[in-house]
Amino acid sequence: MSLQYSCELALPHWLESFVDDWSDPLETTEQRMFLAVSLSAENVLQGTGGPFGAIVVEAETGRLISVGVNLVTTVELSIAHAEMVAISLAQSAINNWNLGHKTDVQLVTSCEPCAMCFGAVPWSGVSSLVWGANKEDAEAAGFDEGDKPVNWVHSLENRGIRTHSDVLREEAAAVLKKYAKKGGAVYHPGQL
Amino acid sequence: MSLQYSCELALPHWLESFVDDWSDPLETTEQRMFLAVSLSAENVLQGTGGPFGAIVVEAETGRLISVGVNLVTTVELSIAHAEMVAISLAQSAINNWNLGHKTDVQLVTSCEPCAMCFGAVPWSGVSSLVWGANKEDAEAAGFDEGDKPVNWVHSLENRGIRTHSDVLREEAAAVLKKYAKKGGAVYHPGQL
Repeated sequence: MSLQYSCELALPHWLESFVDDWSDPLETTEQRMFLAVSLSAENVLQGTGGPFGAIVVEAETGRLISVGVNLVTTVELSIAHAEMVAISLAQSAINNWNLGHKTDVQLVTSCEPCAMCFGAVPWSGVSSLVWGANKEDAEAAGFDEGDKPVNWVHSLENRGIRTHSDVLREEAAAVLKKYAKKGGAVYHPGQL
Repeated sequence: MSLQYSCELALPHWLESFVDDWSDPLETTEQRMFLAVSLSAENVLQGTGGPFGAIVVEAETGRLISVGVNLVTTVELSIAHAEMVAISLAQSAINNWNLGHKTDVQLVTSCEPCAMCFGAVPWSGVSSLVWGANKEDAEAAGFDEGDKPVNWVHSLENRGIRTHSDVLREEAAAVLKKYAKKGGAVYHPGQL
């Protein structure tokens, strides 16, 4: 019996210099989303995964804590959505599973979270969630968002997590559309 | 700016010899669940995380593909639920994000999946899901299962994923109860 006892979530190499070049402060919600969307676009350009990007920032200051891109097809892990990667790398950076243990932390993602990422948000300790493109945009590009509770936004708000939709939606949706047009892989079992 | 560019999901050291000792075949659903529940109990005993265990097996033969335990507090990652760990290590073992790409694969978990793990199941490529303890058992021990769609079982079945509940429920729930009685950590932001 030969089992695996560990696996790694590792960002592709281009990301380090890409983020280093990003010296603008992330004071506004739009600046934060612009980075998340830029990550989604660059991930497609570099061929390292699906058209999704996310970042975790300190809510008040905009200090960048982590970045994530979709890595499903490159690390061969179905959980490696941009949000899951960003959440995990942020927790790894502060060495605490609860991102909210000291200060308010925000997750900014280029696209409305799927059912898995929605479920992961409350466990992460983030205090707010911002997204750009929405479910309709993702589905128009061939992606499946999974089955969330009908009132999923309300569910997050009820748990004290503030939500903010449609930030740079057009720009975020354009990346999805371009990916679909180029015939990019849509990686879920139902569509194979 | 000092960001993390990778993180690891690594099982604790006791698991390797624990699983090596497990030479019985996993032909029946009960045998599979007995291993998942035993992993949940041993995880508590070893002090390496919450009272949850999961395995991934080849559906027909019962060949063990991976094991997982809850590692949230030990690896400091909120996504490290037993199911997510088992799914990821199985994908890592076969080097494919789609567990169902060659054969039917089953996820057997000691407790009904939370909202995140429910959302992760369809993306993983498993063709069936088996659980022991249920939401009420988990909640009685102080855990939060998150907000799943009301008809979440139907949602999985609609996607072609067969479900099987209440397998060794009593044994699985007993582990949760014991953990709660000992004052084990319940690790989600809402309860801190």
